Amino acid sequence: MSPDTFWIWGRHPVLEALNSGSTHQVLIASGRPPSDIVEAIREAASRHGVPVKDVPPNRIESIAPDQNTQGVAAEISLRTPASLRDLLRSLPADPMHQFLLALDQVQDPHNLGALIRTADAAGVAGIILPKRHSAPLSGIVAKTSAGALSHLPVLYVTNLARAMDEVRDFGLWIIGLEGGQNTSVFQADLSIPLMLVVGSEGHGLRRLTREHVDLLVSLPMFGTVDNLNASVAGSIAMYEALRQRLGTTPGINHAS
Amino acid sequence: MSPDTFWIWGRHPVLEALNSGSTHQVLIASGRPPSDIVEAIREAASRHGVPVKDVPPNRIESIAPDQNTQGVAAEISLRTPASLRDLLRSLPADPMHQFLLALDQVQDPHNLGALIRTADAAGVAGIILPKRHSAPLSGIVAKTSAGALSHLPVLYVTNLARAMDEVRDFGLWIIGLEGGQNTSVFQADLSIPLMLVVGSEGHGLRRLTREHVDLLVSLPMFGTVDNLNASVAGSIAMYEALRQRLGTTPGINHAS
Repeated sequence: MSPDTFWIWGRHPVLEALNSGSTHQVLIASGRPPSDIVEAIREAASRHGVPVKDVPPNRIESIAPDQNTQGVAAEISLRTPASLRDLLRSLPADPMHQFLLALDQVQDPHNLGALIRTADAAGVAGIILPKRHSAPLSGIVAKTSAGALSHLPVLYVTNLARAMDEVRDFGLWIIGLEGGQNTSVFQADLSIPLMLVVGSEGHGLRRLTREHVDLLVSLPMFGTVDNLNASVAGSIAMYEALRQRLGTTPGINHAS
Repeated sequence: MSPDTFWIWGRHPVLEALNSGSTHQVLIASGRPPSDIVEAIREAASRHGVPVKDVPPNRIESIAPDQNTQGVAAEISLRTPASLRDLLRSLPADPMHQFLLALDQVQDPHNLGALIRTADAAGVAGIILPKRHSAPLSGIVAKTSAGALSHLPVLYVTNLARAMDEVRDFGLWIIGLEGGQNTSVFQADLSIPLMLVVGSEGHGLRRLTREHVDLLVSLPMFGTVDNLNASVAGSIAMYEALRQRLGTTPGINHAS
C-alpha cells in the first residue's frame, strides 16, 4: 500500500469517497439485512468501475478495530500535489487564499484530523508536514477531519525546514506559533500571504523549525495551564488569521 | 460517592491534587519498585491527613480501565460554588473578568476537558452546565483539562434556561454560538460582561437555550465542512472574546 493509500469505513464516508473518485476497492460485510445506502454504495462503485467484495464481517473489523464500520470499508487514495512546487503554483492569485498551514511533527491522528477540519473551514489552501514523526493519513484522520481531508491538499515533505525556505522564496511569510513569545498572535499581521507553523502538543516547534520562521507568536494565556491542546491552539491561530484576512478583503462575505 | 467526587490517576496529577487540598483517599499499587514521586505522594498525604491504602494493581486498573495510571489513583472532590448566586457574587469587579461559559449538553468528556482547559487560559471565571445530558466530572475530564479543572469553578445546574435568566439579571450579556447566523463572532461586541453559550457537537444549542440568549453568532466557514469540533469552535469564540477584552483593557499585558 503506498503511503497515500489507506482504509476508511462507515457507509456515508465510503459513499462520499466513491463519488469523489479516488477509491480502489470496497469491502462489504456479508450476512447483513439489505439497506438503501449499501445499495447506493454498490451502484456508485459499479458506475465508477470500483471492485466490490463481499467478505466475512471480521475482515472489516480487522481493518478498523473498535470502530463503528457499519459493515463497510474502502481503500482510497487522495489526489495530493506531486510536489511543493505544484502546491505553490496551484495557490489562487487572491492573496486572501495564499494561506498555508505547516504542522511540525503532529503525531496524534485525532489532532491531525481536527486541524485539517479547521484548516478547511478557515480558508487554508493546503497543509505541509514532515514525513518523519507525523501521523500518516489514515481512517482515523479522515474521520476526525469530517470529510475535509478529501478536499484539502495535504503534502508530506522530506525536509520541513527546506520546504519552509521554498515557501518563503515563493513569497509567503512564515509565522510560527510557540509559547512564551513577546508578540501575541493578535498583534501580528496575519493578513499577508502566510504559512502558519504549528508544533506538536507537549514539544512545540523543533529548534530547526523555529530558526526558519520569520516571526514567532504566542497565544495569550491567563489561567493556570501553560499551554493548550495542539489542535485547539492551531485552530485559534488559523481563525485569527481568517478574521484579519476578512477585514482586509471587502469582497468576502463576512458572516457566511 | 457525591456527584462532585471522582477518581483521578497518574503520579503527578495525584501529587498536585494532594497539594491543592481536596483529596479523600489515595490508592497505591503494591509490588512496584520504590520511586521518589510515590514517596512524595505518601509524604504529602501524611502531611494533609489523607489516608493511603496499598492495594493489588488490578484494584487501580478497575478504577481507570485502559488508562496509564502509573499505579496510583486518588478520590478527590472539587470546591465548587454552592449555587449560581455564589458564583456570580464571586465574579471580580473588573468587567474584563466578568466572563462565564455555559455548555449546553456537551457529553464527550474529552471535549468538556478541552473546553475547561481553554476557558482557564482565556480568562473565563466559571463554567455552568445542565445536570442532565452533560458529561459528569471524571478522571478523563480532569486529565483532558490539563489541571485547569482544579482551578476553574464548574457548576452543574438543574435548569440551564433559568440559570441563563439569572445570569442576565445579574448584568451579563448572553451570546450563543450557533451555525448559520447572520452575525459572525467577529462582528459581535464580546468585550462586555459576557456569558458565552456553546452547544454539543452535532446538535448545537437546544431550542429553549436559543430562546434565552441575547444574540446568536456564527463562526465564518469557508471550506466544505459545515461545522467544527465543539471544543475547537468554543475555543475559537472564547479567544475572540479574550482578544476584544484585551483591546479594551490597557492594564492587561497583551502578550503574556
